[in-house]
Amino acid sequence: MTTHDPSGPAAGPETRGRAIPPASVARLTIYLRALNSLLAEGVERVSSEELAEAAGVKSAMLRKDLSYLGSYGTRGVGYEVQLLTRTIAARLGLTQEWRVAIVGAGNLGRALAGYSGFTTRGFEVAAIFDADPAVIGSEVGGLKVSAVMDLEKVLARTGVNMVVLAVPARSAQELCDELVAAGVRSILSFAPVVLQVPPGVEVRKVDMATELQILAYHAQRAQESEQSSQSRARSAR
Amino acid sequence: MTTHDPSGPAAGPETRGRAIPPASVARLTIYLRALNSLLAEGVERVSSEELAEAAGVKSAMLRKDLSYLGSYGTRGVGYEVQLLTRTIAARLGLTQEWRVAIVGAGNLGRALAGYSGFTTRGFEVAAIFDADPAVIGSEVGGLKVSAVMDLEKVLARTGVNMVVLAVPARSAQELCDELVAAGVRSILSFAPVVLQVPPGVEVRKVDMATELQILAYHAQRAQESEQSSQSRARSAR
Repeated sequence: MTTHDPSGPAAGPETRGRAIPPASVARLTIYLRALNSLLAEGVERVSSEELAEAAGVKSAMLRKDLSYLGSYGTRGVGYEVQLLTRTIAARLGLTQEWRVAIVGAGNLGRALAGYSGFTTRGFEVAAIFDADPAVIGSEVGGLKVSAVMDLEKVLARTGVNMVVLAVPARSAQELCDELVAAGVRSILSFAPVVLQVPPGVEVRKVDMATELQILAYHAQRAQESEQSSQSRARSAR
Repeated sequence: MTTHDPSGPAAGPETRGRAIPPASVARLTIYLRALNSLLAEGVERVSSEELAEAAGVKSAMLRKDLSYLGSYGTRGVGYEVQLLTRTIAARLGLTQEWRVAIVGAGNLGRALAGYSGFTTRGFEVAAIFDADPAVIGSEVGGLKVSAVMDLEKVLARTGVNMVVLAVPARSAQELCDELVAAGVRSILSFAPVVLQVPPGVEVRKVDMATELQILAYHAQRAQESEQSSQSRARSAR
């Protein structure tokens, strides 16, 4: 049987150096979610077909994605749920502690500060910032809102290594520049604008309208197929 | 030169029936955003290489994605920005009016009601609901908060054809069932749970932690390459 030392492939230099394609990274997060559900149910082994189905992908694609982690699973036996969970988490960088700051204590920042999906996935919200003197010092999600002016000092004190930018489009670039100047290298932005950053800084953008657009595509197709089956029904009469 | 009647390909039965793969649908929304920026700058033509670069994809992939819309662009001349914008929008279902209701007037619901990215992309927020008597009747984003109890009545009156679910995980399935019972067929959920719906109902889930996980992968890789260049520097000494 081929099983792995858990510390092996994720830490091994032969796999560590190889970048995983962006689409595979995104799918690994989906497998991880499915695996965590299986773990919670006490499932110990899962076949690639079962895991692929739980994640909503084809099993060939799942096997391709998992090949970036090294060699896993045994033909006819499947994957050990716990081992695969640990390996994906390690490769995604989720076994280290991520301390998140939220910049912007408006409605979105407050929603994110209270979002249960962050803490259950190992992201601790360690600081929240705002520029409004009326908001600074108030409490949000159990944290005192800090002044954007004190960004560098507070980020250093709280050990933050990841920032979520939840500010309006018009102030996003300015705050992004301040974050970069304060040494932040990983930014998740909810502002509906493209942010310019120097090399070495990673910005990911969440565009909430994109999902509505994708939903619109499916909704329109559903309407069309309804209309065409109605017209078929009419012409059959 | 091969140009198209704008009403042509999007409405043509030969393209309409063909489903676009999910990853291509997602990328079409990115091209649309890039094209809208070009339109705003007054650009009339764009090559596949330029558009691919603006969208952050390889030009072969862009051409493949656009092939689902029918035949576009002329070798050596590129795409007409306005025509391609209209064609993608039509195919994504964005030329019809989408009226959105937000269920949940908490921090996230309020943030979404005020999100400028929705209205600029053609999604009009027409109603907002909550179950809390203290919130019902108050004003959020220019709308009076309706009672969840009146869901069916208000959805019919406001002509809503798409719902954003911005409620806590624990009440998401119950509200989802009520929405389906009220005739809603397109739901975008921000609740970090899997929702069960009958066939014919499309649910898309926005998981905000996924983006943080992808960011963690890149952050960890950046740390590793920094560490390995430091250790190379040490051993070179």
